[in-house]
Amino acid sequence: MSANDDLKALIRTIPNFPRPGIQFRDITTLLLDPSGMARTVERMASATQGPIDLIAGIEARGFLFAAALAVPLNAGVLLIRKDGKLPGATIAEDYALEYGQDRIAIHEDALVPGARVMLVDDLIATGGTARAAIRLIRKAGGVVNQAQFLVDLPDLGGADKLRSDGVTVDALVAFPGH
Amino acid sequence: MSANDDLKALIRTIPNFPRPGIQFRDITTLLLDPSGMARTVERMASATQGPIDLIAGIEARGFLFAAALAVPLNAGVLLIRKDGKLPGATIAEDYALEYGQDRIAIHEDALVPGARVMLVDDLIATGGTARAAIRLIRKAGGVVNQAQFLVDLPDLGGADKLRSDGVTVDALVAFPGH
Repeated sequence: MSANDDLKALIRTIPNFPRPGIQFRDITTLLLDPSGMARTVERMASATQGPIDLIAGIEARGFLFAAALAVPLNAGVLLIRKDGKLPGATIAEDYALEYGQDRIAIHEDALVPGARVMLVDDLIATGGTARAAIRLIRKAGGVVNQAQFLVDLPDLGGADKLRSDGVTVDALVAFPGH
Repeated sequence: MSANDDLKALIRTIPNFPRPGIQFRDITTLLLDPSGMARTVERMASATQGPIDLIAGIEARGFLFAAALAVPLNAGVLLIRKDGKLPGATIAEDYALEYGQDRIAIHEDALVPGARVMLVDDLIATGGTARAAIRLIRKAGGVVNQAQFLVDLPDLGGADKLRSDGVTVDALVAFPGH
């Protein structure tokens, strides 16, 4: 039994969502469990390297872990949102989807230069959104060299791509073969 | 100076978003502030009445406060999502928008009957989404008699409507006249 099998057991798999052939790893069952939430937050906090200023959470499930970690890590929360959702002036970054592309944004005044930012999300698959988030934070003057995820789908290669961007990647749970 | 003026000072107002004539109360500036986040979470936790089993957060900004409160309150997180986002079988509830309607959903197996649920969101305006969330939780067998918000726009009457639904409403900051 590996270290986080207790958390892995709280994640259920829903076949054929959102499309036939996809095994969706559903973390909502972990979120509903008070002890599962507490252990997730505690282990992510323990894996955090050095002081950080901001935790960047990717809309929408990434917001959960960014906010839960903020108080224990004495950091603020940076929202990485779908384009068009933020009310102030933004900078945006495009990324490729399987079909077409999408765009994420942050407020252009959200970061002070040199701010130390840790990226979090619930899951990393191909890493497209996470890499766009890293480009965006760096474009805004932030320093991001760590990312944490609850779930990694290692066969899709996203974590390795982030590492090639100079980012340390931690994930509590992996589903090989996705 | 009222009790939470320190938090109110961290919320900025962006005129004419998302439409001309709307004064958008932007909480992202509070989120970026580690001490602002910590004080918000601490005061929401202090205002919580009795033990609760789940904190229901409304997509997307409500997720922030639901997750941040979960560990301190020893509760789980229930995601209230836009229809179509949850992977499992859901129950849904419609609510009116200014033009047209929208629909939110929860997993149909998310609640055990009698689960004590507190609703949270960043802001209450007309209360349409929050009331739909309360109907949904009750339909699923949950008991919800408390809701907390960071911001109340009291002139839009949402908090009073929730009270007429039998829910205690707390908000840390109010913007009269919205």
